[in-house]
Amino acid sequence: MTTRSPYLDAVSGATPAHMPVWFMRQAGRALAEYRAIREDHDFEDVVHTPDLTAEVTLQPVRRYGVDAAILFSDIVTPLQGIGLPIEIVKGTGPVTDGAFRTRADVDRLRPLDPDADVPWVLESVAILAAELGDVPLIGFAGAPFTLASYLIEGKPSRDYAHTKALMRTDRATWDLLMARLSDLVATHLVAQVKAGARAVQLFDSWAGALTPSDYAEYVQPWSQHVLARVGDLGVPRTHFGVATGELLGLMATEVEVIGVDWRVPLDDARTRVPASVATQGNLDPTAVLAGVEVARSGADDVLARVGDRTDHVFNLGHGVLPATDPGVLADLVAHVHERTRR
Amino acid sequence: MTTRSPYLDAVSGATPAHMPVWFMRQAGRALAEYRAIREDHDFEDVVHTPDLTAEVTLQPVRRYGVDAAILFSDIVTPLQGIGLPIEIVKGTGPVTDGAFRTRADVDRLRPLDPDADVPWVLESVAILAAELGDVPLIGFAGAPFTLASYLIEGKPSRDYAHTKALMRTDRATWDLLMARLSDLVATHLVAQVKAGARAVQLFDSWAGALTPSDYAEYVQPWSQHVLARVGDLGVPRTHFGVATGELLGLMATEVEVIGVDWRVPLDDARTRVPASVATQGNLDPTAVLAGVEVARSGADDVLARVGDRTDHVFNLGHGVLPATDPGVLADLVAHVHERTRR
Repeated sequence: MTTRSPYLDAVSGATPAHMPVWFMRQAGRALAEYRAIREDHDFEDVVHTPDLTAEVTLQPVRRYGVDAAILFSDIVTPLQGIGLPIEIVKGTGPVTDGAFRTRADVDRLRPLDPDADVPWVLESVAILAAELGDVPLIGFAGAPFTLASYLIEGKPSRDYAHTKALMRTDRATWDLLMARLSDLVATHLVAQVKAGARAVQLFDSWAGALTPSDYAEYVQPWSQHVLARVGDLGVPRTHFGVATGELLGLMATEVEVIGVDWRVPLDDARTRVPASVATQGNLDPTAVLAGVEVARSGADDVLARVGDRTDHVFNLGHGVLPATDPGVLADLVAHVHERTRR
Repeated sequence: MTTRSPYLDAVSGATPAHMPVWFMRQAGRALAEYRAIREDHDFEDVVHTPDLTAEVTLQPVRRYGVDAAILFSDIVTPLQGIGLPIEIVKGTGPVTDGAFRTRADVDRLRPLDPDADVPWVLESVAILAAELGDVPLIGFAGAPFTLASYLIEGKPSRDYAHTKALMRTDRATWDLLMARLSDLVATHLVAQVKAGARAVQLFDSWAGALTPSDYAEYVQPWSQHVLARVGDLGVPRTHFGVATGELLGLMATEVEVIGVDWRVPLDDARTRVPASVATQGNLDPTAVLAGVEVARSGADDVLARVGDRTDHVFNLGHGVLPATDPGVLADLVAHVHERTRR
């Protein structure tokens, strides 16, 4: 049984018409049509205005011919939705008005009511579900650990020292924080699916800073909880983080797809996760900066490591870099489709 | 045959009296006695004044009772020595006066003449060799790739996009740059050994950003060249980078010791390198921020993974963080010594 979506086929055990392709951060600064919108609207405007969100989410689908759209959003959106004062500072990233490190701070986290707190997300998803036709929309959320690290550090961090100190020295507060964040993230993803998203991806951007034993002890149970709640809806789930080579096995439960960055050769990554789990990613995001030939050659290396498998989703190993030439990405989509057509 | 140095014993196949301990970036901001010196002298002053370099290098040996000293220096020192205008900007790192991206830029790299270009390094090493007695001094240099990335990006980078673009699209310029940097780094390390350093560590801080195949193609031959030249002198050589789990096997040639960050469990790392190569590192640098109990527990986990081996050098998986309590590190040294005394 195949559908009209190579993406949904590949991640559900069916044989796709060709290997599906999409790119993390495919919407954004690499596209002139995105930069044109940003001339009149700041980032938060785009995220909070459904017509704009839908437009920038659709731009890469039109331009590249990718096999999936991903909701244009930010991982801190649901935290802002419940009233936490988090600002996205240009050149820095999300910054809070004060670091979360105590029980009183954690008590500021209330449950998310999507209809009331993030109505623009649901409206954007509904618009996109109608516009996209056979191309599935992937819902989007940051994982509890990555959200916790923003709240605890107060700003992007290199070492996550305060986050790790809290988990190691105040287990009760850590567990409460992770319980609340897990509930918030699960609710956010479930709402996106109910509004029309046909798949989800959970981004644990910073999990790769953890040792496998710390990940297993302090993080995995909470991410599993989120993924299990989404699993009840029957949509395919992808789990991804960078520098997570040693965590792939731990991250590849309660998911249909595991995202792989560029550091681990894809055939090695395959040996670290259950055979039933599909793979995604793996091309170094800088490989597309050096022209069509280098990009195709990098893609061909990934395809060689995929071999005969029909359960790989072609993607970069991290987000599209702003300096990327959209022409190279468009060529890459056509190239992968052409080489894998059945 | 054992020496009076547990460090030299452990890395040369002898049985040390106890497991040797030192810490990457053991000299520096975590120590009040270092901060006191920095009140009157900026970083470059300290690096360029042998008495000050020797003093801050000795401070952690006195305070912690570690089994090795490492020359207090910066990886850009030899580049500054040949006259390249590189400045260490507070809060940012090394910044050049313009990115190196062309053949003409590469031509600015002339060979290093240590006596003339970095006399303060040789003088510092000589002072330290005399003062340290049985405690060996480890010489220090950045690896060609990491130096190249600073020169090509012009400042610290997240994605090394320009560096990777150069290696992929202008192989001749890349090879020339790496040849010159390799010669410079090898000369710098050899000079330190001749001046009295009894071991060396090559830091390829950013190699972990590369795929294994790119590392093997564009970087490994040059680092091997550096290490082979030092090997002619018969001193033990350590090779280290962060996020290098997939590169450990490639990095563990022409070395006596492979450094392991905290992401890879030490027993897994052991399986990725030849049995004849000793290991170093592995404790998460944030594990020492949460007090003596958490630090000891982290150390005990590393010791359990070492098992009966006598060829491990206890260290963190990256540099000491400035917020670290020196009392915790001193306790950790005593704890590891006590638990491993033979």
